[in-house]
Amino acid sequence: MDWRARLLRLDGLMPALDEHGGLLWGTLADCPPEAELVFLGLLDGRPCFAPVPMHGADGPAYAQPQVWQAMQTLSPADLAIYGGARSLVDWHARHRFCARCGGGTSLVKGGWQRDCDGCGAQHFPRTDPVTIMLVEHADRLLLGRQPRFPPRMFSALAGFVEPGETIEEAVAREVLEEAGVRVRRVRYLSSQPWPFPSQLMIGCHAIAQDDALTIDTTELEEARWFTRAELLEARAAGPEGTGDLIFPRSFAIAHHLVTWWLDR
Amino acid sequence: MDWRARLLRLDGLMPALDEHGGLLWGTLADCPPEAELVFLGLLDGRPCFAPVPMHGADGPAYAQPQVWQAMQTLSPADLAIYGGARSLVDWHARHRFCARCGGGTSLVKGGWQRDCDGCGAQHFPRTDPVTIMLVEHADRLLLGRQPRFPPRMFSALAGFVEPGETIEEAVAREVLEEAGVRVRRVRYLSSQPWPFPSQLMIGCHAIAQDDALTIDTTELEEARWFTRAELLEARAAGPEGTGDLIFPRSFAIAHHLVTWWLDR
Ligand SMILES: [Zn+2]
Ligand SMILES: [Zn+2]
Repeated sequence: MDWRARLLRLDGLMPALDEHGGLLWGTLADCPPEAELVFLGLLDGRPCFAPVPMHGADGPAYAQPQVWQAMQTLSPADLAIYGGARSLVDWHARHRFCARCGGGTSLVKGGWQRDCDGCGAQHFPRTDPVTIMLVEHADRLLLGRQPRFPPRMFSALAGFVEPGETIEEAVAREVLEEAGVRVRRVRYLSSQPWPFPSQLMIGCHAIAQDDALTIDTTELEEARWFTRAELLEARAAGPEGTGDLIFPRSFAIAHHLVTWWLDR
Repeated sequence: MDWRARLLRLDGLMPALDEHGGLLWGTLADCPPEAELVFLGLLDGRPCFAPVPMHGADGPAYAQPQVWQAMQTLSPADLAIYGGARSLVDWHARHRFCARCGGGTSLVKGGWQRDCDGCGAQHFPRTDPVTIMLVEHADRLLLGRQPRFPPRMFSALAGFVEPGETIEEAVAREVLEEAGVRVRRVRYLSSQPWPFPSQLMIGCHAIAQDDALTIDTTELEEARWFTRAELLEARAAGPEGTGDLIFPRSFAIAHHLVTWWLDR
């Protein structure tokens, strides 16, 4: 056991924080001997690990107030470390059995794979591609609210890429399904990994053919068109937002996409 | 049971073909009563299903000569139907058990989900994001050969997007790992679903900083720079290729990416 190795302190899937709100690190001696350890990589030249908790996430990470809180208070570097570690240990905790034969599985390759003890099948952590899109019409942007969002917070529409689709087809289908809007000229802007739980966010821009909305209320609580002036005002207002709108948080790709649109 | 419903005839995971090399369809009566059925969608207004086979794929689809054969002979429309169906039924065959608790799972929602009979966990088919890239230097393109490729066939380098990466970071890492080349100005070109087994191919272009190659021979058997003239000649030569090079097949995104580069 390398005395220089560091162990990310987790309480289940939640980060343990120091008095300054930073991530708390221990040594491998802090870990029960039977715990599975995932290798996170080298940080400042020291190998870093995270323990696989007894139980994985029960629901979506964003539904947990503690996770939302951590996103606000952790530094961007700490949030990336925590997010990556959480995503990986959560996957391990939810894959202790083989989907092919039902047998037990074991962590191998430092945590980037699990092998079945019975049939030998190899299992790998998954990353789900998700499109997130700025939809534009007459110099306004379409933003929506999911029911789980804090009050007044709007963001870009988003959805999983389904089997058999291109990125551009996924954007068009998602906007039509969620808002009843047909789009054209879909183009890719940028991407961002989003580890809550394990998504690749693919940011796109598209032009709406018209501005009539038919909202799918199982997906969205509300969606509407925001003018450039409204968005500029909300961005300038900071985390508290305006009476109508809180601008997407800086850790979310929606923040960077809308900022790109405002500043281009 | 709707008498109009059609059943895609499969022999395990392989397509059954008619005398013209097209997909063979039957009725639901052709199916053993205990077989799980996946709903593929409506085709010519008729609901279409595919049966989940006893066993999923044992190795990568491209390693099976029958799959390679089907790619050559099926029409693009039939290949898309077969690929989508194969991807889905293969996932079902390999997920009869719950990764969370080891219990049995059942097909629900027409085959777009499996639920655990024990703990109730929901499981969804996965789609893995994969980058595939044209790497350019001094008006030449870097193409490589994987050991499984037919002789003289070269294609664009490709690799899975890993957790925590953007698309652009995945491209840069992959080219550095496989060919020892550093790239800049990575940009997205287009995407294509690739159902063997279930990938979203994300096509990109990048500029190499220099042309010295250090090949990772566990990934690539060979990689080299091809001039525009060599690629134009190989494309014109059709499926048989030139003495040195078979141009990527038209069903592969690499074909469309290299064609874009040649014709832009
Ligand atoms: Zn197994
Ligand atoms: Zn279960």
